[in-house]
Amino acid sequence: MNSAQRLGFSKGTKLLIIHADDAGLSHSENRATIQSLEQGIVNSYSIMVPCPWFYEMAVFAKNNPQFDNGIHLTLTCEWENYKFGPVLPVSEVPSLVDENGHFYKKREQLRENASVEDVKNELEAQIEKAIKFGLNPTHIDSHMYSVGASPEFFDIYRELGKKYKLPVLINEQLMKIVGLNSEVNIKQEDFLIDRAYFGEFEYFKTGKLNDFYDSILEKLTGGLNLILIHPAFDDNEMKGITVNHPNFGSEWRQIDFDFFANEENKSKLKENSIELITWNDIRKAYNDGSN
Amino acid sequence: MNSAQRLGFSKGTKLLIIHADDAGLSHSENRATIQSLEQGIVNSYSIMVPCPWFYEMAVFAKNNPQFDNGIHLTLTCEWENYKFGPVLPVSEVPSLVDENGHFYKKREQLRENASVEDVKNELEAQIEKAIKFGLNPTHIDSHMYSVGASPEFFDIYRELGKKYKLPVLINEQLMKIVGLNSEVNIKQEDFLIDRAYFGEFEYFKTGKLNDFYDSILEKLTGGLNLILIHPAFDDNEMKGITVNHPNFGSEWRQIDFDFFANEENKSKLKENSIELITWNDIRKAYNDGSN
Repeated sequence: MNSAQRLGFSKGTKLLIIHADDAGLSHSENRATIQSLEQGIVNSYSIMVPCPWFYEMAVFAKNNPQFDNGIHLTLTCEWENYKFGPVLPVSEVPSLVDENGHFYKKREQLRENASVEDVKNELEAQIEKAIKFGLNPTHIDSHMYSVGASPEFFDIYRELGKKYKLPVLINEQLMKIVGLNSEVNIKQEDFLIDRAYFGEFEYFKTGKLNDFYDSILEKLTGGLNLILIHPAFDDNEMKGITVNHPNFGSEWRQIDFDFFANEENKSKLKENSIELITWNDIRKAYNDGSN
Repeated sequence: MNSAQRLGFSKGTKLLIIHADDAGLSHSENRATIQSLEQGIVNSYSIMVPCPWFYEMAVFAKNNPQFDNGIHLTLTCEWENYKFGPVLPVSEVPSLVDENGHFYKKREQLRENASVEDVKNELEAQIEKAIKFGLNPTHIDSHMYSVGASPEFFDIYRELGKKYKLPVLINEQLMKIVGLNSEVNIKQEDFLIDRAYFGEFEYFKTGKLNDFYDSILEKLTGGLNLILIHPAFDDNEMKGITVNHPNFGSEWRQIDFDFFANEENKSKLKENSIELITWNDIRKAYNDGSN
């Protein structure tokens, strides 16, 4: 049984969420995300609560409840010159930060240093901060899928979904990428995204991201599918943030924007009999107990 | 006796610091500040420790000790969509923040709400954070001169200068702008900037900022003078930060950059017999007890 069936559709229905990660990261990311939602084919996004531009995006989310908006739980900051850290005081979650009080760059550092308790407290604080601000999140996912850095962190992630009655992004391909054994760490009760799609550095480097995105739409199969993108502009701000980090860097993000903010690509969805679905739809099914 | 004389110069010597405020605020502000120092006539700047781009500017400061760099003590955040708050946990300085944990927009709100103890602890924490990061600050000044919101805050500011053996920016015109009685609040021991110059909204609105800057250089008189500017680019990031806030907004900051990063304006200093001096020069005199 695939997750389309769990949601009451036929096995062959090609369900798709087109999801913008990293809202709140920067003004550039916010502007591009908003335009991709309003003009393009993006139909869901999630916000990074610890980031400098959280406030701007959170105001948009409050004023635009018609758009799916989740919480992009954040435990890592991969950038060279642009830093952020926990929403909790550093003294309360010392195992999550480097000597300057910022998140570690890599999942491996997080795995080596972070205590389970600190991860739990920080992730919960991010959700609480969003709710206190007035957000009504539709789902939970995770920046760099760093919640998958260890089985213990992953359990916390799943439990937060239960606690807040929110669907969480669980997917085998993402688990594989971060080195989490899906055979052991997926539970019977988990609601799965059947297939997640995201660009690889090789596609970007060889100028084939657009082709990759086209091919996803053309070859999509039945079940619940998810495309993860990071729309932003290749402007001074994003160049500054992603300096020396072409992987998911500003040029890549501009390509994401250009493809997914393009209204003309709506026809590709129709041509390929793709049905967009939101996390909010899933949340409703989830909370009805029908999944 | 003017402050040129206190520094060992003749009364008529036209000493000038050309100072960029707000480094660390944004990537745009950092880039423009750095270019103004390297190519232009700016010869000093100060960093906002609580801001998102502090890290980038602090790395520059550590790697470029030839440039004067101070701490721009910050207790207010005047922007609509771009928010920051204390470096201390909000729970430790609750009187400094609004319901979202961000600094108040206005000095008046700070005056009404902030406790003397919270101001003291937060300002000291900002200096300590900078020093811990490896900075060797040359001076202390204050964003929006908000340390002048009350006589008690101003006393803390002065005491921090003593504690860290750093000169602090004390000037009658700035005190007047923020409503602090200079007759009562300037002490015999204070080292004063004789005259501080900064743009006014009227000049910006009527397109006369450039003329104003030219006239400062042409009409400068003997003593210790200070020009306060805010170089940045009128780009998407700064437009986003300063939205609905043309006063010291992105267009204004671009004008500041264009004028003071312009190498050709070096000749104007020479033509007008202006001698640039740094806060570091003042610090040395200050710590020798010669002032």
